[in-house]
Amino acid sequence: MIIVMGQGASPKEIRAAIARIKELGYTPHPIYGKERTVLGAIGDERGKFVLQSLESLPGVERVVPILKPYKLASREVKQERTVVRISPGVTVGDRQLLVIAGPCSVESEQQMIDTALAVKKAGAHLLRGGAWKPRTSPYAFQGLELKGVKILRKAGDRAGMPIVTEVMNPVDVETIAEYSDVLQVGARNVQNFALLKRIGKSRRPILLKRGMMTTITEYLMSAEYLLSAGSRQVILCERGIRTFEDATRNTLDLSAVPVLRERTHLPVIVDPSHGTGVAAYVSPMARAAVAAGADGLMIEVHPTPEKALSDGPQSLTFEKFADMMATLKPFIAAAGRAL
Amino acid sequence: MIIVMGQGASPKEIRAAIARIKELGYTPHPIYGKERTVLGAIGDERGKFVLQSLESLPGVERVVPILKPYKLASREVKQERTVVRISPGVTVGDRQLLVIAGPCSVESEQQMIDTALAVKKAGAHLLRGGAWKPRTSPYAFQGLELKGVKILRKAGDRAGMPIVTEVMNPVDVETIAEYSDVLQVGARNVQNFALLKRIGKSRRPILLKRGMMTTITEYLMSAEYLLSAGSRQVILCERGIRTFEDATRNTLDLSAVPVLRERTHLPVIVDPSHGTGVAAYVSPMARAAVAAGADGLMIEVHPTPEKALSDGPQSLTFEKFADMMATLKPFIAAAGRAL
Amino acid sequence: MIIVMGQGASPKEIRAAIARIKELGYTPHPIYGKERTVLGAIGDERGKFVLQSLESLPGVERVVPILKPYKLASREVKQERTVVRISPGVTVGDRQLLVIAGPCSVESEQQMIDTALAVKKAGAHLLRGGAWKPRTSPYAFQGLELKGVKILRKAGDRAGMPIVTEVMNPVDVETIAEYSDVLQVGARNVQNFALLKRIGKSRRPILLKRGMMTTITEYLMSAEYLLSAGSRQVILCERGIRTFEDATRNTLDLSAVPVLRERTHLPVIVDPSHGTGVAAYVSPMARAAVAAGADGLMIEVHPTPEKALSDGPQSLTFEKFADMMATLKPFIAAAGRAL
Amino acid sequence: MIIVMGQGASPKEIRAAIARIKELGYTPHPIYGKERTVLGAIGDERGKFVLQSLESLPGVERVVPILKPYKLASREVKQERTVVRISPGVTVGDRQLLVIAGPCSVESEQQMIDTALAVKKAGAHLLRGGAWKPRTSPYAFQGLELKGVKILRKAGDRAGMPIVTEVMNPVDVETIAEYSDVLQVGARNVQNFALLKRIGKSRRPILLKRGMMTTITEYLMSAEYLLSAGSRQVILCERGIRTFEDATRNTLDLSAVPVLRERTHLPVIVDPSHGTGVAAYVSPMARAAVAAGADGLMIEVHPTPEKALSDGPQSLTFEKFADMMATLKPFIAAAGRAL
Repeated sequence: MIIVMGQGASPKEIRAAIARIKELGYTPHPIYGKERTVLGAIGDERGKFVLQSLESLPGVERVVPILKPYKLASREVKQERTVVRISPGVTVGDRQLLVIAGPCSVESEQQMIDTALAVKKAGAHLLRGGAWKPRTSPYAFQGLELKGVKILRKAGDRAGMPIVTEVMNPVDVETIAEYSDVLQVGARNVQNFALLKRIGKSRRPILLKRGMMTTITEYLMSAEYLLSAGSRQVILCERGIRTFEDATRNTLDLSAVPVLRERTHLPVIVDPSHGTGVAAYVSPMARAAVAAGADGLMIEVHPTPEKALSDGPQSLTFEKFADMMATLKPFIAAAGRAL
Repeated sequence: MIIVMGQGASPKEIRAAIARIKELGYTPHPIYGKERTVLGAIGDERGKFVLQSLESLPGVERVVPILKPYKLASREVKQERTVVRISPGVTVGDRQLLVIAGPCSVESEQQMIDTALAVKKAGAHLLRGGAWKPRTSPYAFQGLELKGVKILRKAGDRAGMPIVTEVMNPVDVETIAEYSDVLQVGARNVQNFALLKRIGKSRRPILLKRGMMTTITEYLMSAEYLLSAGSRQVILCERGIRTFEDATRNTLDLSAVPVLRERTHLPVIVDPSHGTGVAAYVSPMARAAVAAGADGLMIEVHPTPEKALSDGPQSLTFEKFADMMATLKPFIAAAGRAL
Repeated sequence: MIIVMGQGASPKEIRAAIARIKELGYTPHPIYGKERTVLGAIGDERGKFVLQSLESLPGVERVVPILKPYKLASREVKQERTVVRISPGVTVGDRQLLVIAGPCSVESEQQMIDTALAVKKAGAHLLRGGAWKPRTSPYAFQGLELKGVKILRKAGDRAGMPIVTEVMNPVDVETIAEYSDVLQVGARNVQNFALLKRIGKSRRPILLKRGMMTTITEYLMSAEYLLSAGSRQVILCERGIRTFEDATRNTLDLSAVPVLRERTHLPVIVDPSHGTGVAAYVSPMARAAVAAGADGLMIEVHPTPEKALSDGPQSLTFEKFADMMATLKPFIAAAGRAL
Repeated sequence: MIIVMGQGASPKEIRAAIARIKELGYTPHPIYGKERTVLGAIGDERGKFVLQSLESLPGVERVVPILKPYKLASREVKQERTVVRISPGVTVGDRQLLVIAGPCSVESEQQMIDTALAVKKAGAHLLRGGAWKPRTSPYAFQGLELKGVKILRKAGDRAGMPIVTEVMNPVDVETIAEYSDVLQVGARNVQNFALLKRIGKSRRPILLKRGMMTTITEYLMSAEYLLSAGSRQVILCERGIRTFEDATRNTLDLSAVPVLRERTHLPVIVDPSHGTGVAAYVSPMARAAVAAGADGLMIEVHPTPEKALSDGPQSLTFEKFADMMATLKPFIAAAGRAL
């Protein structure tokens, strides 16, 4: 931690800051400059967020943290990349490029079985579908809930695919974990710490989506919640952040892929469906994600997007999904990966 | 709803869109322009979010909603302003400018009782303090939980003040409602729909903070969740949004005050402590909030901010809080309000 | 400047960084922590932006500047507030709350004379009107150019008011300075450095608007361009920044007022017309600006907003402007100011 | 244009709006809904921005434009993609993937000649280098100006490469056009309309960088300024937008590539150096840009980035640039392009 004293800080204020640094168990290391005094505070600054409150001391201008605030998620603690094993033959974080596909919402058994068979045939590994839906409006379709999870399970079994679905309420973790191979934490819940603490205790792999307003550092802190609760099977997913640009639903932050690969050992996938919100942009952005180094993709597919109960505009038809998979192949090979 | 057809849309595509509008129970009303055809769809578009999926139809360029998506929260449904009654003599939404004060976190009984007596003396009406704390880091102080709520209750009783505290987990709603006069939903949970649905059933008034990345429309949709679950006692709170500017912790969006007062009958208060993140800016922004028409203020106060376990840099000392209240008075009068 | 070495930095890399710091004329001051080594570099870091390039050295994680990058604009260099004298009796930066009013664009002599007389009567000091208009579209009204400036001058003279107008091209500075008492640099030109360098040499006071995507630090650097070119008469103007919120045209960042008043001696005014983009929100935000400590206001006024060639939706009629001035008065008094 | 009347709009207000629509030369087309009346206004809305001012009419809630505001830049006017010819064998917009490389600033003849030879050998087509530098600080290196352009020309000639450099001041257009094959408009000048109007008259191809705060629609309007001034040789360049994320200098908005390719016929290249600000992320984001469909890349290369006078942290060494070009090749092939 570096404590920057203001230009007019008095010797007394500097002594008080030094005393407070010692009191908190750190070794102070002052640098007396021409215009400003800077105090290094040596010691483990993680978990000692109270240091930030030094900004309230008279004469202190600002406090600059030096260490990264996450530990278990960082590559400094664990160099080798984490490989998450979802089911026999389905992994993420190794050479296999994981493809997750399915509709935004589970709407009916027919819809799910048709979709499962179609996406499986086109090369997808993991079936998605929302049963509890986080909708902006209380009047919008809220999902089939437990019935939806059971339909999803049935469709996955029929196609021989593991499944992933979102958990919104801490009390539902155990029930959903009985049915679903992977538990998803949605973008709006990325800082729902009550949910993170509970779901981190599950034995199931967790797909943690980045929030639309979460910095990469905050996002890794949310992953740290899961890891510190006991989970070791965490998959990250960039899905677009909120900006001023409105040509797309969100701004897909693909740079997050190399940034996350540098900072963490956890696998990183990309969701270009939510990232763009427009079916026509999904395929180019899926190719770009693979080229940027993503470990996988998450794609919304619906039998009849124009009739979808949610997220129709960003959903691919079966045919467009198969086309996307075909055009993706040379890029997967160029990236040194395989389906 | 207005459906804008693309420039090259064929007569067949236009007919298909018209047919689909009818199928969904709307009356189509086409306008054939020189360059584009536009289809009005007459009918209640609320709760029919499936219309958005028409964007997936061939030839459709985009779908523009016309009606506001919220109903119970809107002034179109309820003209007269809602007055929330918190305790005898403590209200918000009428002439009284509600002042909420207290520390970010409940840390100890001594801290809370000292703070309660100090802020009460300076003119505050409602005592705040966090017991379950949403912290970015799992290693930061997480709050005293139930013990904290009990301390807060005791301090409130000692000073003769009602209390408000945050609820993070749906399962805690009932327990916390036994102790706390007002239940707070924090910024990070503004779209935690599982929590909103549960807390909206409580008989306690609810203080719903705006999320740092929530548009005003989305924010009113979150209020709509509470109202549609049965609550009628909802207080809104602008607390800063996330932008590129880093001189302040967030960017306090004071324009939200007149916008919300135009769109909704619910009372609107402002939190300049989180809004700026810097103690020195709290007082001017509190004055500005009153001048903009806010119904109340929420201010972080701590006996020794430089030792606070959370949010020290933005907390006022007792003395600075009393100063703020003194400088605020002529502005409260200018706004036609009273403490 | 603080140079943070990466966790795995070798002794050789640390020695190389120290050598490079010396080579650049700084005194290195290493702090060897448990997990990381940090190098203080003592010396004047302003104007030596090449230090940032140290980030490219092997083993260096990041470079943290300590000093503020602006000098002439800062209160560290000049404590007392700058008072800009515009014309006899019209100043800004002292007790007088400066009110600037007028249309977005100069459209005709009649429009300008009517407006000048109306705003003068309601209490405005300085007349505004655009002659060269920065319009997003090349097909939108581009302004009357020199003819417009002459009309503006005539209207100002008729009402006995000094005038301000925007300069867009460095070659026009001298011509416009012959007519206009104050030269405005628009938000889109806040980092048009060719213009800043040229206009900073003018003897006329300069009204420098904040860009919609400019941080406060960058904004002060743009003011520094003007000051370092010789100008001493610079007025700052917050006019809203671009965010994700679309209920308003921009997000008026009123916190910038106390931040700027803390950092710089230059006067700070607020433009709630561009800041909100909606006539109904101008008056409450003008009151809030005064309460936040602004030194003045800039308000768009038009005889018939619904026929304005630009910015109609945010323009006040004469009557609404007079109303605003009336409701503003108690707030001006509360702020210890006068018109 | 669609004019949405407010819920309480009176028949008289509706009639007045209809009359005003006619007065402006449009054909009104009212749709009387259950809750709101909507008025279609048929006619060419481009260039008639005054329609927006209808929002000021009593009873009008908002005005929704339907047509795209750009014309010459749009694919609706020109379907076939524009190919910009820079020099014999160097084009952009066709199958060739254009690679632009060179330092941020021209610093010396030696630096430029070394760089030119190195990037040419690695496969670059067009040499870049800044002579007039837009720097946030007036104390930072401002460029070698005309001397810099001459050095750039000499280096380009030595390596047999055409050159591109930035123009900041309208008065410099002609002089720089004598030396430089392509004229660049920098991100900070994307809405410097005085510059756009002047440079659009040049016979040289123009590289127009997207502003950090420019929506895609506004960006195309800036291109429209160039096209409507007479230029037909315009190259677009995505270079990152400003968001809340600070792990990268900007957020590279790669989705802009498919969006722009859908909306305009102009070629689109990507600058991952400014887009990320970090050398380590340039190569993965260059690959992602190619996969997203970009027509070219712009890469900062410097012989010794740790000594660069500007933008060192994002510059590649000669060796890293050659590596990047090598790893890029399979992706270029996968995209159906060639160097």
